[in-house]
Amino acid sequence: MTINRQILLVSRPKGEPTLENFHLAAPELPELGEGQVLVRNFYLSLDPYMRGRMSDTKSYAPPQPLDTVMIGATVGEVIESRHPDWQPGDAVTAMFGWQEYGISDGSNLRRLHDARVPMSAYLGAAGMPGVTAWYGLNRIIAPKAGETVAVSAASGAVGGVVGQLAKRAGCRVIGIAGGEQKCAYVVEALGFDACVDYKAGNLDDALHAVAPDGIDGHFENVGGDVLDAVMRNLNPHSRIALCGMISGYNGKPIPMKHPALLLTNRVRLEGFIVSEHMDVWPQALKALTDAVATGELRYRETIAQGIESAPAAFLGLLKGENFGKQLVRLV
Amino acid sequence: MTINRQILLVSRPKGEPTLENFHLAAPELPELGEGQVLVRNFYLSLDPYMRGRMSDTKSYAPPQPLDTVMIGATVGEVIESRHPDWQPGDAVTAMFGWQEYGISDGSNLRRLHDARVPMSAYLGAAGMPGVTAWYGLNRIIAPKAGETVAVSAASGAVGGVVGQLAKRAGCRVIGIAGGEQKCAYVVEALGFDACVDYKAGNLDDALHAVAPDGIDGHFENVGGDVLDAVMRNLNPHSRIALCGMISGYNGKPIPMKHPALLLTNRVRLEGFIVSEHMDVWPQALKALTDAVATGELRYRETIAQGIESAPAAFLGLLKGENFGKQLVRLV
Repeated sequence: MTINRQILLVSRPKGEPTLENFHLAAPELPELGEGQVLVRNFYLSLDPYMRGRMSDTKSYAPPQPLDTVMIGATVGEVIESRHPDWQPGDAVTAMFGWQEYGISDGSNLRRLHDARVPMSAYLGAAGMPGVTAWYGLNRIIAPKAGETVAVSAASGAVGGVVGQLAKRAGCRVIGIAGGEQKCAYVVEALGFDACVDYKAGNLDDALHAVAPDGIDGHFENVGGDVLDAVMRNLNPHSRIALCGMISGYNGKPIPMKHPALLLTNRVRLEGFIVSEHMDVWPQALKALTDAVATGELRYRETIAQGIESAPAAFLGLLKGENFGKQLVRLV
Repeated sequence: MTINRQILLVSRPKGEPTLENFHLAAPELPELGEGQVLVRNFYLSLDPYMRGRMSDTKSYAPPQPLDTVMIGATVGEVIESRHPDWQPGDAVTAMFGWQEYGISDGSNLRRLHDARVPMSAYLGAAGMPGVTAWYGLNRIIAPKAGETVAVSAASGAVGGVVGQLAKRAGCRVIGIAGGEQKCAYVVEALGFDACVDYKAGNLDDALHAVAPDGIDGHFENVGGDVLDAVMRNLNPHSRIALCGMISGYNGKPIPMKHPALLLTNRVRLEGFIVSEHMDVWPQALKALTDAVATGELRYRETIAQGIESAPAAFLGLLKGENFGKQLVRLV
C-alpha cells in the first residue's frame, strides 16, 4: 500500500493567495489497471500561470475546480507498468500536478531522450519555459542582429532563456531583475550585456543608461511599472511579446500608464500562451535540449524539498523570492 | 498680383489648442520660376494627426516648425504652369498645407484621374483616410467572414470606410460614435450592423448588447475609455489596429485600465501610420476610388468655408464636432 501525498486547491484567493488555499491530502494509490503506467514524480514545476488557475475570473485557461490536485508539469520515472510501451526505469515528463505519483494510460507521457540533460531541465530551459522563451523571441519579437532586446524577470526560467537566445541572435540584451544578486547573475553567468535592478528605483533612467539607442524588442513577464518604464524607452517599430504580468496577478488590474506610446512608436504587441502553439514545440525543444546538453544554454534552479513545501514555494515565486527555475523535489 | 492667404502655426498649445496658436498671413505670391506649377487649392483636409505636429513632444513625425504654414493635404487645379507635364485645368492633390495656393516643381503633385469621383473625396474615402482604413483593416485586423469588427469614431473619415470595408468582407460591424445622430447615420447610411453612442454611458454593457459573441477585430481612433470598454469585450486572438487616440491628444496621457486583458485574450495590437506603408497605396487607392465612383463606398463631409475658418474647424474636429470628413473649401 502506497500513500500518494498531494496538494489540493481548496479555496480561491481573495487578492494574494495564502497557505490556507491549499490542503495536503494523503490518499492511497489504487491498483494499476490493465494498460496503465505508474510514475514516481521526481520533480514538480512551479510556474506563474498556476496563479491564474486558482481564480475563477476569465483567463486564457479555465479555472481549476476546487478540491482537485493543483495542475502542474512533472518529471519522474516509471516504476510499474501494465502498458507494453512503457517499462520501469523509463524517464518521463507529464502533467501529473502537485503530487508524488501519477497514473497514466501512457497517452500524456513524453519520454526524456537525452541523457546529457538533467531531468529537472525538462521542466525549465528544455521544457515549457524554454519553449515559451523561444516562441516569444523568435515568433513575436523576431529580432535582427544588432537590435536591442529587453526582458523582465531576466533571472527566471523563461527570462534567462530569452536573453541567451537573443545574444545568440546577435542582439544587445538588457535584463530587468529584482536585486543586485540576480542582476549580477544575469550578466556574469548568462552573458547579458546589462541588467537593471527594478528595486533600485528610477527604472526609466536606468534603462536609458544601458540602452541609450532604445529598445527594439521586449519580452514581458512582469507588467505594471516595469512595462511602463520599458515603453518609455521603446524605439519606433519595436515589438513586445506579452508573456506574463505577474505584478498584477494578486490584486486589482494595474493600468498601463501611457498606451499612446504604442501608437507614436508604431509598436506591435502580442499576448500569447505557448500551449496554443504546439506546432513549434518539436523544433524549439530540439534546439533547447541540444543547447542545454552542450552547456551553451545555462540556467539556475531554486529547489524546495518535499510535496508539503510546494504551497509556500509557490507563494514565494509570486513574490520573486525564487532565483531561476522554481522546482519541488519529491524524492 | 495675387494674395495667398495662409494659416501659420505661431505657438505651441499647452493642453488644448486655441485660436491663438494660429495666425492668418496674407503674403503675395511670387512669380513662377522655370519648371514650376501654380495650383489653386479648392479644398484643404483637416485631420487629427495635425494635432501631433503642433506639439514638440516626441511622436511619429517631427514637430512642425513655428511660423510656417500648417501641414495638410489639398486638392485643387493647376492655374499656371511653366512645366511641360502640367497644364492649366489639371486636377491635382498635394500637401500644400493650410493655404489658398501652392507652388510646386511637379514632383509632389498627384493627378486626379477618375472624373466620376468628386474632387473632395480624394482627401477622404479615396485618399489618405481611406488608405488608413484599408491598411488597418486588411493588414492588421485581417478579418475573416463571420467575425465581429468594431471601429471607434465610426462616422469619421477613417471609421466610416473601415466599417464599410469590413461589411464587404462579410463581418458583423459595430460602430462607436458620439451621439444619436452619428449613430443613426452609421447604421442607416453606411450599413453598419449596430452603433453605440459613447456619450450615452456604460459603453461596456452597450457593446456587449450589440456584440454578444465578443469582438474579434477593433480599429481604434479614440483611445481612453472607449478602448477600455472595447477591451473588456474582446475575444481570444482578437486584433487591434491602433490608428489614433484622439481622446488623449490634448492633455496628460490617458492610461489603459486593464492591459492584462491583452495577455489573457492573446491579443495582437499594432500601432501604425499609413505614410510608412507606401507599398499598399496604389492597390488601396485603386480599390477605394473605384468603390467611391460606383457609389458602393459612402461618406459624409463637414465643410468649413474659407481659409480663415480652418483653425476653428480644426479645434472642432478635435472635439468631435465634425460629422464625417472635415474639409475647408477655399474657393
